[in-house]
Amino acid sequence: HVTEAVHEYSIAHSTPLPEVVEQHRARSIDFANRVGMDPGMMVNTLQAQFMLFLAKLIGAKKVLEVGTFTGYSALAWAEAIKGQEGAKLVCCDIPGPHTEFAKATLLEAGFLNKLVTFFEGDGVETLQSLPVDQFDIIFLDANKDGYLPALKTILSRNLLSARGIVVADNALKQGLVADATDKNPHAANSNPGGVMGYEHIDEFNKFVRDNEQLEQVLLPAFDGLNIIRLKQ
Amino acid sequence: HVTEAVHEYSIAHSTPLPEVVEQHRARSIDFANRVGMDPGMMVNTLQAQFMLFLAKLIGAKKVLEVGTFTGYSALAWAEAIKGQEGAKLVCCDIPGPHTEFAKATLLEAGFLNKLVTFFEGDGVETLQSLPVDQFDIIFLDANKDGYLPALKTILSRNLLSARGIVVADNALKQGLVADATDKNPHAANSNPGGVMGYEHIDEFNKFVRDNEQLEQVLLPAFDGLNIIRLKQ
Ligand SMILES: C[S@@+](CC[C@H](N)C(=O)[O-])C[C@H]1O[C@@H](n2cnc3c(N)ncnc32)[C@H](O)[C@@H]1O
Ligand SMILES: C[S@@+](CC[C@H](N)C(=O)[O-])C[C@H]1O[C@@H](n2cnc3c(N)ncnc32)[C@H](O)[C@@H]1O
Repeated sequence: HVTEAVHEYSIAHSTPLPEVVEQHRARSIDFANRVGMDPGMMVNTLQAQFMLFLAKLIGAKKVLEVGTFTGYSALAWAEAIKGQEGAKLVCCDIPGPHTEFAKATLLEAGFLNKLVTFFEGDGVETLQSLPVDQFDIIFLDANKDGYLPALKTILSRNLLSARGIVVADNALKQGLVADATDKNPHAANSNPGGVMGYEHIDEFNKFVRDNEQLEQVLLPAFDGLNIIRLKQ
Repeated sequence: HVTEAVHEYSIAHSTPLPEVVEQHRARSIDFANRVGMDPGMMVNTLQAQFMLFLAKLIGAKKVLEVGTFTGYSALAWAEAIKGQEGAKLVCCDIPGPHTEFAKATLLEAGFLNKLVTFFEGDGVETLQSLPVDQFDIIFLDANKDGYLPALKTILSRNLLSARGIVVADNALKQGLVADATDKNPHAANSNPGGVMGYEHIDEFNKFVRDNEQLEQVLLPAFDGLNIIRLKQ
């Protein structure tokens, strides 16, 4: 399949992930299968390579992640920012075996309670209550009905640094935001109004588009990344 | 078609291009058709939105473009960097009606010989002879057999700023770099060793991958963007 070959080619010609991240991918897949969770929730290898590159490109020091799952993307962020004065990664997920696994991983890697602070609980509530700070990257990758309240909280509490970005994953939701008719093969399995529904993502994208404070690009890579910054 | 709907959706939910860029797209299409050139050489609207966003994101001041055609991407770069102290755009293309059209456009917009310097001639020769400066973005979008000599010149003459990026367009060449068999519908029309051949791009991607000075991500959006920076 050409698409698959292109994907593998892109991975092979991008800077490889640090070994610890690479290895954690395999361990996460094992773990998820063992506890009956979906390993496909992790960002793919190429997306991790892109996010790590992006963090270095903008010189990110402080990253906030909503939706950590087994800690795969978190490890990538940690590797991107570590070693810098003031570097800081805030992770957040709801309690469960995946969160225990993520914390154990981040502890073993020497990050937990040093570079990394982990908040267990609802992402939006965490954003509403964590100590105010300005983050250079805020990665939204949890329940899709939480993106919009998360962004509103980010703006009202001023959690994004002047040159920082919000990166919202699954911003195209398998194309359903643009076409949810039967022409889209993913339409049959979609649950529009549910917590993972494309309708929430569409509402989020439209809020971003219409907000005069923001500028953004909806990058058609992976499952769509809405990359958002404060207009200067 | 779902893919087309997704593309239109992405354009509509990304920050719109400045009107002057938008309008120049339509004028370029007219012009190209009139003189028998291919308007499809321009980056598409969404890619222009992405490049403009990227330039602002990294706070680019100095941009160098190899392959300006009618000046569409050049106008986008100019709009991204204008107004900053020390802002500078260097354009380059071979002589021809498209170059006259590009220069006239950049003059009319008030950029030519102010923000913009235009070099007419071969891109690699231009890189070898232009006054040394450090650019934050170097956009490679001309003949594909020129990418590798261009990059070598950029490195040897130290033309990339410490936090700058080279953005190489068409880095996936319709997937041909990964699969040029008959399974790829573009295989029939490809001319591997020609100046636009995918073999040159593949060689470029491999040089980048194997160069210890560089780190990079091959972003699978548009026709593939190889985004490259100096390892810090
Ligand atoms: C797509 S996964 C995250 C994957 C991770 N970013 C990675 O790439 O490795 C989504 C995560 O969001 C979490 N989640 C679901 N509802 C949540 C909520 N209300 N607050 C915080 N996290 C939530 C899930 O438990 C799951 O681990
Ligand atoms: C794909 S087009 C550039 C499109 C433009 N960047 C845009 O997005 O609007 C490629 C251009 O490279 C130019 N070109 C071809 N060979 C060249 C060379 N040796 N040196 C410089 N430019 C060259 C062509 O004349 C053509 O205008």
